[in-house]
Amino acid sequence: MIQRGEKVILIDERGRKYLVAAEPRQLHTDLGAIDLGAAIGKKPGERLKSHTGKEFVLLRPRITDFLQKMKRAPQIVLPKDAAQIIAYTGLGPGDIVVDAGAGSGALAMFLANLVRPNGRVISYEVREDFARLAEDNIRSAGLSDIVTIKLKDIYEGIEERDVDLVALDLPQPERVLPHAEAALKPGGYLAVFSPCIEHIQRLHAELPNYSFVNYQTIECLVREFEVKPGSTRPKTRMIAHTGYLTFARRV
Amino acid sequence: MIQRGEKVILIDERGRKYLVAAEPRQLHTDLGAIDLGAAIGKKPGERLKSHTGKEFVLLRPRITDFLQKMKRAPQIVLPKDAAQIIAYTGLGPGDIVVDAGAGSGALAMFLANLVRPNGRVISYEVREDFARLAEDNIRSAGLSDIVTIKLKDIYEGIEERDVDLVALDLPQPERVLPHAEAALKPGGYLAVFSPCIEHIQRLHAELPNYSFVNYQTIECLVREFEVKPGSTRPKTRMIAHTGYLTFARRV
Amino acid sequence: MIQRGEKVILIDERGRKYLVAAEPRQLHTDLGAIDLGAAIGKKPGERLKSHTGKEFVLLRPRITDFLQKMKRAPQIVLPKDAAQIIAYTGLGPGDIVVDAGAGSGALAMFLANLVRPNGRVISYEVREDFARLAEDNIRSAGLSDIVTIKLKDIYEGIEERDVDLVALDLPQPERVLPHAEAALKPGGYLAVFSPCIEHIQRLHAELPNYSFVNYQTIECLVREFEVKPGSTRPKTRMIAHTGYLTFARRV
Amino acid sequence: MIQRGEKVILIDERGRKYLVAAEPRQLHTDLGAIDLGAAIGKKPGERLKSHTGKEFVLLRPRITDFLQKMKRAPQIVLPKDAAQIIAYTGLGPGDIVVDAGAGSGALAMFLANLVRPNGRVISYEVREDFARLAEDNIRSAGLSDIVTIKLKDIYEGIEERDVDLVALDLPQPERVLPHAEAALKPGGYLAVFSPCIEHIQRLHAELPNYSFVNYQTIECLVREFEVKPGSTRPKTRMIAHTGYLTFARRV
Repeated sequence: MIQRGEKVILIDERGRKYLVAAEPRQLHTDLGAIDLGAAIGKKPGERLKSHTGKEFVLLRPRITDFLQKMKRAPQIVLPKDAAQIIAYTGLGPGDIVVDAGAGSGALAMFLANLVRPNGRVISYEVREDFARLAEDNIRSAGLSDIVTIKLKDIYEGIEERDVDLVALDLPQPERVLPHAEAALKPGGYLAVFSPCIEHIQRLHAELPNYSFVNYQTIECLVREFEVKPGSTRPKTRMIAHTGYLTFARRV
Repeated sequence: MIQRGEKVILIDERGRKYLVAAEPRQLHTDLGAIDLGAAIGKKPGERLKSHTGKEFVLLRPRITDFLQKMKRAPQIVLPKDAAQIIAYTGLGPGDIVVDAGAGSGALAMFLANLVRPNGRVISYEVREDFARLAEDNIRSAGLSDIVTIKLKDIYEGIEERDVDLVALDLPQPERVLPHAEAALKPGGYLAVFSPCIEHIQRLHAELPNYSFVNYQTIECLVREFEVKPGSTRPKTRMIAHTGYLTFARRV
Repeated sequence: MIQRGEKVILIDERGRKYLVAAEPRQLHTDLGAIDLGAAIGKKPGERLKSHTGKEFVLLRPRITDFLQKMKRAPQIVLPKDAAQIIAYTGLGPGDIVVDAGAGSGALAMFLANLVRPNGRVISYEVREDFARLAEDNIRSAGLSDIVTIKLKDIYEGIEERDVDLVALDLPQPERVLPHAEAALKPGGYLAVFSPCIEHIQRLHAELPNYSFVNYQTIECLVREFEVKPGSTRPKTRMIAHTGYLTFARRV
Repeated sequence: MIQRGEKVILIDERGRKYLVAAEPRQLHTDLGAIDLGAAIGKKPGERLKSHTGKEFVLLRPRITDFLQKMKRAPQIVLPKDAAQIIAYTGLGPGDIVVDAGAGSGALAMFLANLVRPNGRVISYEVREDFARLAEDNIRSAGLSDIVTIKLKDIYEGIEERDVDLVALDLPQPERVLPHAEAALKPGGYLAVFSPCIEHIQRLHAELPNYSFVNYQTIECLVREFEVKPGSTRPKTRMIAHTGYLTFARRV
């Protein structure tokens, strides 16, 4: 049963989503106003009605919902790319992750959801405004126990040891290599997200100086389709580039 | 410390991997023979030597290693695609998954590794030989507590209820829609892998008859790069198509 | 030397293009007004000045300029796709082409420029407004001697014989197969542009009933890059889908 | 009617092609032996029979046939990429082209077929063996009147002037920029094919020092489809990368 103050998802008849707290207050939508207090005590899958009689399905949010609805300041690592980190490193429950820069916390949240409940994500960020935004987003998604934001410059060092994954989204990933080498456990992975090819060139120039094997650089493209009766086709426009992902394994 | 009988990974100087058990027996490689018993009592990151003096780094395997080294009978769902199921459904620790057909168990293993330790994967398979192969692979990866293979035809029904994800890789996914609707909890997801566009056309024709919203069909392409000094370029050949992924959310 | 009334291209200092006639009239741009009469008697590569002193390079237009600046009513076949027709059919000077529907004439213009001066393009169109628009665009590009627009329904037949290429961009290409078979010379090509997969499915279902071999269906994707010092990357957005191209050879 | 000694295409019942001369000699195939002399005096579209009774359709070759059947020494520029040069530069009949290096002549042949009969292609090549191979291929395709192979190093200069297109496929395209600037007519185009990103980075670093505008770098990907009843899908494997194409216009 939905508790007072719990985060819930409402989905209207067009499939549009609202991420709100179950508490006595009005939500105003273009399909009418809804009393969110009515969600308290209901079960997921039950419906709320707006004052105009439109129905909204009540659901518990998943990490995908939090990621879609979070406040984003800088460019975030999209789930399609974050997911490739899982595919290439085998990250899972119980793993210890260091990521930097935290930005608005999207990657930390995505990874934290997968290392729960015994794993941890330590997220380095040098900008105080981003660190605060990331903390807000993480708290909102209920992941504060898993993620720690550190207001520190990862170029100066990583304090953690025996780490399973170091995930980087910053302009000079090659400067983190000595720290990642020291922090990772044998068999752990480095994963680097880089929008530009120059980052990759610099990273690969430095990698052979450290104890990493199995370097791989990939790009993940996701194409969406329109499937209507008699008219199936890829969508006309797509996000053609977010960034490259480079993986290497600590030995 | 590595225990006797424990599965370990050896990585040679070229980055090639061997998945073996730590027990007194010789492993013959083109870089010489190694006594695998010497791994017992060593720590991950330590090295073994072949009789020709070549070094092999000793590591604990991750799910990626098991997936790369598993016995494959039918075509498997590749990690790049399995990972998009995580990106689009937010699957995580504790979730309950039904998948079908099990095939050689690759998708079940990938998902099981992420729902550990409290989640479960129930994997339907009609062919006894595949079911046995999948069980072997799952046992080998240490995931037998998480995955149950059911020698049953999912077209005839799903016995589980309150499921978070129904993942399908079979020729007539539209025939599973009524069962998936009954099995999924509100807010849970359907994920369908389809090599051919005709599967998607039939699936989308049937979806509006059931309680699903937010249908999306995507294709995930992963391009690998060669990064050498002065010579950075995508690899000449790639896997251009594995299958389409369709997602829908139960309301 | 540029003649009075001749079409010319002006390129400003930002690389922006203007397609205009060389005749005594003012062109108003955000970089100032230019007297187009001053172009008469100049040579390509010389410069005109706006009243604010900005320079504009004077060039003779190429077919690419006409295609970029033409009036477009319906969706056009883009040069990237039209070019694949050349790659797969070997179209060249002297060839006879039938295309349908003409639309705004973009494909006819592209092909006409390549079959000049002895080849011909006969372009079928059922809508009178499109036929008129196509004729305007073709006249403007100086290709009226090469292209004939026929206000006829190609589903009812093709009058031409010994044709080298039949190029189709219409909803029911399979209905043109008997006419294309009769019109094409042995060794000639059919090329079909189809936005949706259903067109291709119907086309391939019918092709074996006619005298065609070497069927091929392709999709051409063009990705643009941003190359700046220290920041080389594919552009963030791209046109992800225009249509599929199917080729078959008449025997 | 086919003349004695004329090049012809034979297509067997499986769609396989043979490029041969019509002269009294046996062609041995896995579908039996064919007397090629029987082709003399026949018309395109007629059939020859092997001694086992299998039929072969007789056709006049197109440039696509010559390109598929030519002797290839180094890597060639594929038609899909050569065609984008047409799309982006508007090359057509009558144009004057300089290309380098000639390699086995594939690009020169593709372009020569499109500038016929009044245009010319001058193709620079420093390796004598390649130059000879290119000449053989060009003669075989009947394009010797259009293409001239020059055994010269284009890094040292281009002798031609008033050129419409300079097309480069060599390791240091930036070294040709001053020569291309001098050789191209105003409004003419530079087109550079580069397998590696480093070529592009060096080229773009130098371009602003010369009189070029409208720089564009693209990549062209062609995906092939399998279309069978009930089973439509992109092919499993594709050529994922040939090279990048960079265009710039001389002003």
